[in-house]
Amino acid sequence: MTNATIPTSTVTPPDILRCAYMEIVVTDLARSREFYVDILGLVVTEEDENSIYLRTLEEFIHHNLVLRQGPVAAVAAFAFRVRSPEDVDLAEAYYEELGCRTERRRDGFVNGVGDSVRVTDPLGFPYEFFYQVDHVERLAWHYELYGPGALVRLDHFNQVTPDVPRGRKYLEDLGFRVTEDIQDEDGVTYAAWLRRKDTVHDTALTGGDGPRMHHIAFSTHEKHNILSICDKLGALRKSDLIERGPGRHGVSNAFYLYILDPDGHRVEIYTQDYYTGDPDNPVVTWDVHDNQRRDWWGNPVVPSWYTEASLVLDLDGNPQPVVKREDPTEMAVTVGADGFSYTRKDDIEHGFKLGHTL
Amino acid sequence: MTNATIPTSTVTPPDILRCAYMEIVVTDLARSREFYVDILGLVVTEEDENSIYLRTLEEFIHHNLVLRQGPVAAVAAFAFRVRSPEDVDLAEAYYEELGCRTERRRDGFVNGVGDSVRVTDPLGFPYEFFYQVDHVERLAWHYELYGPGALVRLDHFNQVTPDVPRGRKYLEDLGFRVTEDIQDEDGVTYAAWLRRKDTVHDTALTGGDGPRMHHIAFSTHEKHNILSICDKLGALRKSDLIERGPGRHGVSNAFYLYILDPDGHRVEIYTQDYYTGDPDNPVVTWDVHDNQRRDWWGNPVVPSWYTEASLVLDLDGNPQPVVKREDPTEMAVTVGADGFSYTRKDDIEHGFKLGHTL
Amino acid sequence: MTNATIPTSTVTPPDILRCAYMEIVVTDLARSREFYVDILGLVVTEEDENSIYLRTLEEFIHHNLVLRQGPVAAVAAFAFRVRSPEDVDLAEAYYEELGCRTERRRDGFVNGVGDSVRVTDPLGFPYEFFYQVDHVERLAWHYELYGPGALVRLDHFNQVTPDVPRGRKYLEDLGFRVTEDIQDEDGVTYAAWLRRKDTVHDTALTGGDGPRMHHIAFSTHEKHNILSICDKLGALRKSDLIERGPGRHGVSNAFYLYILDPDGHRVEIYTQDYYTGDPDNPVVTWDVHDNQRRDWWGNPVVPSWYTEASLVLDLDGNPQPVVKREDPTEMAVTVGADGFSYTRKDDIEHGFKLGHTL
Amino acid sequence: MTNATIPTSTVTPPDILRCAYMEIVVTDLARSREFYVDILGLVVTEEDENSIYLRTLEEFIHHNLVLRQGPVAAVAAFAFRVRSPEDVDLAEAYYEELGCRTERRRDGFVNGVGDSVRVTDPLGFPYEFFYQVDHVERLAWHYELYGPGALVRLDHFNQVTPDVPRGRKYLEDLGFRVTEDIQDEDGVTYAAWLRRKDTVHDTALTGGDGPRMHHIAFSTHEKHNILSICDKLGALRKSDLIERGPGRHGVSNAFYLYILDPDGHRVEIYTQDYYTGDPDNPVVTWDVHDNQRRDWWGNPVVPSWYTEASLVLDLDGNPQPVVKREDPTEMAVTVGADGFSYTRKDDIEHGFKLGHTL
Repeated sequence: MTNATIPTSTVTPPDILRCAYMEIVVTDLARSREFYVDILGLVVTEEDENSIYLRTLEEFIHHNLVLRQGPVAAVAAFAFRVRSPEDVDLAEAYYEELGCRTERRRDGFVNGVGDSVRVTDPLGFPYEFFYQVDHVERLAWHYELYGPGALVRLDHFNQVTPDVPRGRKYLEDLGFRVTEDIQDEDGVTYAAWLRRKDTVHDTALTGGDGPRMHHIAFSTHEKHNILSICDKLGALRKSDLIERGPGRHGVSNAFYLYILDPDGHRVEIYTQDYYTGDPDNPVVTWDVHDNQRRDWWGNPVVPSWYTEASLVLDLDGNPQPVVKREDPTEMAVTVGADGFSYTRKDDIEHGFKLGHTL
Repeated sequence: MTNATIPTSTVTPPDILRCAYMEIVVTDLARSREFYVDILGLVVTEEDENSIYLRTLEEFIHHNLVLRQGPVAAVAAFAFRVRSPEDVDLAEAYYEELGCRTERRRDGFVNGVGDSVRVTDPLGFPYEFFYQVDHVERLAWHYELYGPGALVRLDHFNQVTPDVPRGRKYLEDLGFRVTEDIQDEDGVTYAAWLRRKDTVHDTALTGGDGPRMHHIAFSTHEKHNILSICDKLGALRKSDLIERGPGRHGVSNAFYLYILDPDGHRVEIYTQDYYTGDPDNPVVTWDVHDNQRRDWWGNPVVPSWYTEASLVLDLDGNPQPVVKREDPTEMAVTVGADGFSYTRKDDIEHGFKLGHTL
Repeated sequence: MTNATIPTSTVTPPDILRCAYMEIVVTDLARSREFYVDILGLVVTEEDENSIYLRTLEEFIHHNLVLRQGPVAAVAAFAFRVRSPEDVDLAEAYYEELGCRTERRRDGFVNGVGDSVRVTDPLGFPYEFFYQVDHVERLAWHYELYGPGALVRLDHFNQVTPDVPRGRKYLEDLGFRVTEDIQDEDGVTYAAWLRRKDTVHDTALTGGDGPRMHHIAFSTHEKHNILSICDKLGALRKSDLIERGPGRHGVSNAFYLYILDPDGHRVEIYTQDYYTGDPDNPVVTWDVHDNQRRDWWGNPVVPSWYTEASLVLDLDGNPQPVVKREDPTEMAVTVGADGFSYTRKDDIEHGFKLGHTL
Repeated sequence: MTNATIPTSTVTPPDILRCAYMEIVVTDLARSREFYVDILGLVVTEEDENSIYLRTLEEFIHHNLVLRQGPVAAVAAFAFRVRSPEDVDLAEAYYEELGCRTERRRDGFVNGVGDSVRVTDPLGFPYEFFYQVDHVERLAWHYELYGPGALVRLDHFNQVTPDVPRGRKYLEDLGFRVTEDIQDEDGVTYAAWLRRKDTVHDTALTGGDGPRMHHIAFSTHEKHNILSICDKLGALRKSDLIERGPGRHGVSNAFYLYILDPDGHRVEIYTQDYYTGDPDNPVVTWDVHDNQRRDWWGNPVVPSWYTEASLVLDLDGNPQPVVKREDPTEMAVTVGADGFSYTRKDDIEHGFKLGHTL
């Protein structure tokens, strides 16, 4: 991996529909099952002693999340569904021209998914592209299965990468469109949100040491669903799994919560962003010093949210080395002695809102 | 207009993004303003003595609804946005080949919209296609403007047409995809839902005397927003504007309410259907006798909802003649002496749920 | 039982805290368990082959509902908790002076409750008064037990009696206070709501053939909880158990739903009425012809809701004979040929809202 | 003021119904009006150039809050309504026997309220007791006046006092009942919640330098109403007025938000605690080290919430001197080097949840 600009492939990029599933390695499958199934209520499509295939209540493809038992907690694949079988060919050719390692499996890498290609992309992430997939029952109408915090869709991925503009250019070439980003007055980009489906994002790039996985996000229908997950974690005396939130995002305008699975993989619960499907959908750029950019209510972002993330694997299953971000970090420029934030741009006083220093 | 099958145009259909706005003729602009602005809280983009341009809180194009003062309450246009300026050319050529009357206006038919084509489509509806449009502020973050029943998006149109399969075939040719429909055991289709964006529909065809406009639907974020509209109508002693609902749809799985504007134009308030963007998204077919198809809780559909609808205009502004549906009507086959409905398919007893006969 | 005015007892009435539990006879305990436990999620405090003791999530006394297997569906007791052990003595003396049959059991009539008196009251209802009761865990914080439609409190009873003013005078003597009622221009009272705790009611009198039990009401925290019960009943293909609603009451201003248990015992799910604890709390009188009195949105009351109710038992366990109401009935004066309703009092047109005639 | 035990008055205490209103002094009436009326939506009952009388939507007495222009931000009265006119006499006699300064005004101290007594109570707080009050319209059904964050009731006061057990004994003598408290293993009490009406509290004692007013709390119907207030403050670029929350309390089980008015007076928005009206209602004692006691989700309490509070006035309108708490403070024993908290009692590791140290 190099920080040189990623070239534009001459191959037509695959027509990506949406983020479809993530495969993660967990170190204690039973504990992870308790988290994702018993607490969060994801639906088990199938499972065996080494893996569990999970989906959301409105999903009709085989799974949105694969848990695989393994020695090191990490992400094995960020999988995107493409529009047709031919798009898998395009994906393979596209990345081959970029000089990336690719691996094609006609029978898929995981259960329920057919012909697929996995690549180590120019940013070091394991991306998968597939079209063929088993259909399973869309459980949307099965309200007898809904808990108070019912997860109804996979919404997006979020990836940590040192050089956001470099990654953004690569993803735009691949067909993604930016909907929002965070910059400073010097033009440094701290994060960018990119979409294929008609929401704010299918994936986002968060500036930091990478490649790492920042989070995977599932949707609920309403805000109270998210609050009920917090209430339940409290009741189970697992409130320390709540890392940040709940709150209202500035970016995306969605309501959010970040929690941590038993391996520290970060999961966002998310609801109610806006339609972005028009080609001239206005891009929203946030000032990194705007204290409402990441939490519209000005509640502080906890440091771990900036610094912690999950390793990602190469195609042999080995963790990718993590490269340091060289640009300023969002935490450094917005918090503490060197950084500042504002609530009202023209106010003389900077800093966090009243009371938020311990 | 004829009931003969509509031929398939050899012209590439325009790439339609989404339903974008409706232009309706109202007979008392001030009363309509009270309904749409004061009660429903739509945002006024601009207005003059003859027309009001309204949008939802998350919209960034000039308007989602145009109210125009006129002598006869009717719909002047169902307007769809297309992906590019060239798609307007395609739309014009597409309908010309179908033998439809078309009218192209480089400066648009209404304020805020540029180069557009209006057509009288093979079903007799006034369709508009445009790309150029003024951008206005997306007010999504302006919570100081949100009322308890805030309308955040235009969701869909619904059209009444006598022959649903005929209309469905025409719309599928045009690039729409069916997500759900209602049929009976003899293969009669009573209604079909068709989409371009990633929701259950951008428009739907309801079997009945047509061409008429059944309703226009706006979205809220949550279900309580819809309930608050009912509460407000009660407080204003206008509860008789509530025609049907609130309730949960079977079709679409969304939460809904139908209300009537001062001219009797039907407005749906709608929230929380599901993602449909995959090409193999499973089509859901409902049995017309399933008493939960239109209201998941089995609450009866009021007769007016089946029989009443708004006239539509031709390109000269004259109401289109209404052609009778010849197939059986949904109301007739599901209610009363000749019709039946069931809650559980194998139950011997048919009919409405307990108590619902006056 | 006679329709003569009920005398005022010279005994100090017991200090009633609140409605506390109802004992009902069900004809198929397993089916009732499915309804109250599996579907509604009431918590089982204890059970044996003949009875099940159920409570709501915020309750700390042994139960709010006793289901007892028996040959005829009926209500065995409307039980009120009093402030002290001595109030049970007062209750016994109070009813003895009224000439009512009473039965005192130092060990209680049901599990979990100690010293109690049951009476057949002047209206023919089996009332119980107790103070001693086993404390059980208040499960309010046990969010891991909450379903989407969690029932958190017993809110009230509702009783059908032929002569509402007669019953109201008796209950006011007993210490209840009226919060709202429904009357007509001739002074006929159709219903009255009476409270001890600080809500709109602990019990209500509905004019009709009685004594019968109209419904028992449990509270949820929010309106979406009630909607989720409807969604679940739809998913279980039991939507025909939804008799009326969901909707907003005019009377009480609460959000409501009426459903029917397997024996036809009516259960209301209820949320968000107002504080009534001041002695000069204003009484709200509704015009029986006001179409928003029972549903603020003007949705029609189904006939069964007016006519059907549960038998009540005497102290020997025999159903009380039902006496006909002689005053006009609410249904007759508001619906159909002889009756009328209005949405706006001064409108010339009466009648239901648009479309509600089949 | 002395720290000696407060004697028990031999006078029958007044029968207090509920906390009824607070009179606060604000230094810029126009800015306070913007906060309480324009942002929070409290209803103006009447106003003049020096004062504004505000009420909640479900209130029928003249006001729940009086804003009075003055030189020093402070609280002029914590006013409780009593059951009868005679209870005002009892209150006067009760405090006279305790040796407190009292002032009786037959025409009331503020508009809308008649015969009242104000006292400087043994803890140094200005308490008022009244029965006579003007009735105004209960606006509960006026949904056209509801904003998304509608405040429907005054719920409680919260007072800071150095010696909580001393204050608790005094309030229990006065007829209040404790519902919950926070203690440590040495028996130090950090806070106590006391009620007259059937909720968790009408007032609470928070251990700290006092007498000071910690907050006044208004209720919404649902949790989303509280979230919408945050959203609106963000939209107005006033998110720095959000001091703490929103979140779920451990104590009271209610959903909460703390915001600050332009003078720094703290306002809580609160919803959904539980019924407490039975005399044997179980008292809940929380361990001060339980990290979920004040926020069920374990989110940290900001320091200002522990340390900042409003001055209170004596009957001449002069600020009461503030006496230091001598017992350990809750902040000191739970945060940082000297203090600890736990999420699971038996865990070896103490401390805040992951990430919450800057």
